Amino acid sequence: MKRIGVLTSGGDAPGMNAAVRAVVRCGLDRGMEVYGIQRGYEGLIDGAIKEMDMSSVGDILHRGGTILRTARSERFKTEEGQKHAINVLSAFGIEGIVVIGGDGSFRGGLELSQRGITVMGLPGTIDNDLGYTDFTIGFDTAVNTVLSAVSNIRDTSSSHERATVIEVMGRHCGDIALYAGLTGGADNILVPEMPFDINKVCRKIIQGKNRGKMHDIIMKAEGVGVDAKELAQLVEEKTGKETRVVILAYLQRGGSPTAKDRMLASRTASKAVELLYDDESSKAIGICGSEIVAYDLEKALTIKRPFNADLYHLADVLSK
Amino acid sequence: MKRIGVLTSGGDAPGMNAAVRAVVRCGLDRGMEVYGIQRGYEGLIDGAIKEMDMSSVGDILHRGGTILRTARSERFKTEEGQKHAINVLSAFGIEGIVVIGGDGSFRGGLELSQRGITVMGLPGTIDNDLGYTDFTIGFDTAVNTVLSAVSNIRDTSSSHERATVIEVMGRHCGDIALYAGLTGGADNILVPEMPFDINKVCRKIIQGKNRGKMHDIIMKAEGVGVDAKELAQLVEEKTGKETRVVILAYLQRGGSPTAKDRMLASRTASKAVELLYDDESSKAIGICGSEIVAYDLEKALTIKRPFNADLYHLADVLSK
Amino acid sequence: MKRIGVLTSGGDAPGMNAAVRAVVRCGLDRGMEVYGIQRGYEGLIDGAIKEMDMSSVGDILHRGGTILRTARSERFKTEEGQKHAINVLSAFGIEGIVVIGGDGSFRGGLELSQRGITVMGLPGTIDNDLGYTDFTIGFDTAVNTVLSAVSNIRDTSSSHERATVIEVMGRHCGDIALYAGLTGGADNILVPEMPFDINKVCRKIIQGKNRGKMHDIIMKAEGVGVDAKELAQLVEEKTGKETRVVILAYLQRGGSPTAKDRMLASRTASKAVELLYDDESSKAIGICGSEIVAYDLEKALTIKRPFNADLYHLADVLSK
Amino acid sequence: MKRIGVLTSGGDAPGMNAAVRAVVRCGLDRGMEVYGIQRGYEGLIDGAIKEMDMSSVGDILHRGGTILRTARSERFKTEEGQKHAINVLSAFGIEGIVVIGGDGSFRGGLELSQRGITVMGLPGTIDNDLGYTDFTIGFDTAVNTVLSAVSNIRDTSSSHERATVIEVMGRHCGDIALYAGLTGGADNILVPEMPFDINKVCRKIIQGKNRGKMHDIIMKAEGVGVDAKELAQLVEEKTGKETRVVILAYLQRGGSPTAKDRMLASRTASKAVELLYDDESSKAIGICGSEIVAYDLEKALTIKRPFNADLYHLADVLSK
Repeated sequence: MKRIGVLTSGGDAPGMNAAVRAVVRCGLDRGMEVYGIQRGYEGLIDGAIKEMDMSSVGDILHRGGTILRTARSERFKTEEGQKHAINVLSAFGIEGIVVIGGDGSFRGGLELSQRGITVMGLPGTIDNDLGYTDFTIGFDTAVNTVLSAVSNIRDTSSSHERATVIEVMGRHCGDIALYAGLTGGADNILVPEMPFDINKVCRKIIQGKNRGKMHDIIMKAEGVGVDAKELAQLVEEKTGKETRVVILAYLQRGGSPTAKDRMLASRTASKAVELLYDDESSKAIGICGSEIVAYDLEKALTIKRPFNADLYHLADVLSK
Repeated sequence: MKRIGVLTSGGDAPGMNAAVRAVVRCGLDRGMEVYGIQRGYEGLIDGAIKEMDMSSVGDILHRGGTILRTARSERFKTEEGQKHAINVLSAFGIEGIVVIGGDGSFRGGLELSQRGITVMGLPGTIDNDLGYTDFTIGFDTAVNTVLSAVSNIRDTSSSHERATVIEVMGRHCGDIALYAGLTGGADNILVPEMPFDINKVCRKIIQGKNRGKMHDIIMKAEGVGVDAKELAQLVEEKTGKETRVVILAYLQRGGSPTAKDRMLASRTASKAVELLYDDESSKAIGICGSEIVAYDLEKALTIKRPFNADLYHLADVLSK
Repeated sequence: MKRIGVLTSGGDAPGMNAAVRAVVRCGLDRGMEVYGIQRGYEGLIDGAIKEMDMSSVGDILHRGGTILRTARSERFKTEEGQKHAINVLSAFGIEGIVVIGGDGSFRGGLELSQRGITVMGLPGTIDNDLGYTDFTIGFDTAVNTVLSAVSNIRDTSSSHERATVIEVMGRHCGDIALYAGLTGGADNILVPEMPFDINKVCRKIIQGKNRGKMHDIIMKAEGVGVDAKELAQLVEEKTGKETRVVILAYLQRGGSPTAKDRMLASRTASKAVELLYDDESSKAIGICGSEIVAYDLEKALTIKRPFNADLYHLADVLSK
Repeated sequence: MKRIGVLTSGGDAPGMNAAVRAVVRCGLDRGMEVYGIQRGYEGLIDGAIKEMDMSSVGDILHRGGTILRTARSERFKTEEGQKHAINVLSAFGIEGIVVIGGDGSFRGGLELSQRGITVMGLPGTIDNDLGYTDFTIGFDTAVNTVLSAVSNIRDTSSSHERATVIEVMGRHCGDIALYAGLTGGADNILVPEMPFDINKVCRKIIQGKNRGKMHDIIMKAEGVGVDAKELAQLVEEKTGKETRVVILAYLQRGGSPTAKDRMLASRTASKAVELLYDDESSKAIGICGSEIVAYDLEKALTIKRPFNADLYHLADVLSK
């Protein structure tokens, strides 16, 4: 393959720029032409496409967000939009594209793939909710961002001997809450994958109080079926401990990517370019253990993500 | 004076530990005994008081929060509570105390002062809402914490070409919003001191959009009379630009204090100890320009804080 | 096993506290008694040992360094020292210990193991130089610390259009240089595992210059056989580009551990306690892919670490 | 005045971009044309000058370094070079320029001023060594950068019970060492303005050791007449305490500017533009207390900077 494109789609994630940079530079290194597609599938339909060279990805490795910008596209969900996208790609002579995004972006890529474009998917989402890969690009940065918020909140929470509910991202997948909760020393971790038991939560807080613990942190994924403010009230009523709420929201989306995310982005992007160069069929690239792996794109979307119950249990033991 | 106490009261602020450390070490250096009073006026009433030495304030200079802990005390608002506090102090032979806190804590100190205890007030609050001092301990840290949040939000906000409303602390005083807004490049700054004009806000966003600006940040103090979510909706309707909300809340209270806050804390604390040593009457210590200043405690509470309209105007010019 | 000890030995690493915390809490959770041994094998010989409870490891998860302190022990290298250590352990009734450290610390543990004490080794070193585990505790933090230094240096280096030699830790293992170099966008990476070619270094700098690159970063592991200052001079002579040197030294040793290091520390510590509880023989615990693994302690020390040539090549492609 | 220029010169400092941005936007707001001059006086001589608009300074407020780049110019020291610079300026119709830099840059500006160009100097240097202003742009960021290095070093230094010599910038002015030393809790602060007494240094370390202090930090300005390595050896010999050296070097030059530096840069730049607009004569702009002040450029260079002996003494008391 001689001419490829790259786009970022869906919610942005730290490390997307590192991935774009690696796609461009690995592509050029193999003598391919690389085109940057703006604003995901929206820009693809609009033909917002321009050729990239070495310097067009200079000085972006350490930046959060994505220089290609990103968007969610309603038009691309229609058959007409998809046909239009195909026409644009053929007009540019682009035979294959690298799609950096999450679940929805991959489904979009599958549509293109079924219309004859080779699509390599890179897992670009902070949510770590893709089943075929151990980790997604942006997850490690998001978890570390939550950790630094936790350390700020711990200061003030201890000074006032308060409990704090920290709500983090994760509608269906509780990994941000699980990883940040375990590594942040949260006393309680609430994830969508596990039943929510207010009494268990309060029990631990009361036990901690009796042990002289000054602060309590309840790490809650947004997907858990209880409103953060209501949860705080319940806790206050049942434990008698003043309880506050912090919703981290979009803070978790930005920031300079960590080494781990830059590495994952660089390695998966390099693999995607290699597969395009070898004219392989559409794949989803990810990491399994230390190995970069590639699954058939359609199959990858069917792989369910197992919840890591061992970590959940370990977190519980460590915060007893 | 040979025996003094120190307490932190009201909302905690980064730098309170630096102040406690300086009170203890400067006191000991002058041959005084220094007692730490736990949980503000609550602990004072309870007699939760212990003598401090050099090492009891070791390794705290860089920590957020306050090792003495803090609280708001209802009991101390009663005459009975205040009398009780006086008895405790005389039982310990403590003739003067350093109170690190905000407006309310100083009023509490005034009550003790009128009952014969010398009280030196240090401005410990992130809000920068004390009229007699240019800056308060914790303000600089809070502003820098907001700045790092802004830089995270800028990443994702640019990638999605969104506007974001960032709500920061400040019920009556908009300084956090003003300083973080100006230095964070916010397009709009909303503070309680100035009238809120939704049309002016939207005008700037639309102008920025036409100029190709990718992100817009609206820095809003909590004291401004409009709900953050409602504001976001209004902006979205009037500008057609997707708008999100982030409420930083207690994040702003924690974190390792900046050099400026540690310096302010150390210098004001040293001054407070000097004044106690010299048996001066109750004072509020602050900074004016580069000078550490001390006003009569009662008088200090009457000084109104002028809003810095020049900075507000400059911020407007810089973000045009 | 009912009574265990834990010590940190050799150079400290961020995450050692997270490991100590997990050893203590997992041990208590299994009904074991856990003793903290101060200053590594030095403190063991001196009997500087005290029992730990839940709170003795409170509020340390996020701290760099090690609350148990660490040291290199000459005395322990002697047979007499080792015998003495065994006597101390039996006096305390400690049947097994967790040793958190690097290569040398594990060899020390092996001596105890051969004298009848069960020893579980956790990989605590920033150098990532243990062959039996993919990663060591502290490595991820060190790499991210180097990244933030790189971003500071990039600012000034670009402003002056300079090259900068950054020397990082790694006498025999170049992983810090390799990972920080690849993820920091270094133009050249010098590691002990690969031959040093001054001409290749200068070639890339000259090419970058011609491409309009403003800054160049040469990431050098200390183990590479050329003095950093001499290297800078050579580069300046051969490329005509002003070249500076920064030696990060002990900066890389400290800092709050990253989520990845806290997780690795918590998981390996939990495994070590489980193995002690099950009266397993001495082991070295590590991570392989996503799995926590345990090798026979003696065997683990014989496993050579392969250099990751793929990453080295990828870094070269990305910085071309 | 209708057409002005702006350049950054000498060593770069965090906040220079904030100053450039404010010069451009305040200038445009007053209806002036603003030209950016590349690489300081070098670019001025070369005519590397281009007009700036609102967007040419977008997204730079938070970046370290300077987008205009900077250099030291030998050519500009010659009369010929200066004449040439004047010709370039008149060819572009530029009547006044804002020079952002230190002492040397101001002297260069004075030459232009004496040849009929109005020059407004902004204090852009991390060294805080300009006598006419309380603070320079970049100083606060540099001090905070040193503080975060101190906190990393404290971790490892405590774990090993070591002393560490930290060498910071400052050839003639010890302010970085003084401010970072006081606010970082250094046990000893060595500045060029005060005599160096090895015995006093060791006395404090020995006293700290006897008080159970685990780490010692010696904050040394580079201008102090003793080599850092030799100092460490001396300390080790005289105190028996293992002593390490860290030289922060160019780390101190980079990093995202703090709120304080961005504010100082914005306010002084706004003042400079106002003075140019009002056709005032050449001035040096600075801050005195909270007020932005402007001195005659030539006079400003004659003002000596007094050493702050009170802070030096306070630091000593706090670390006793």
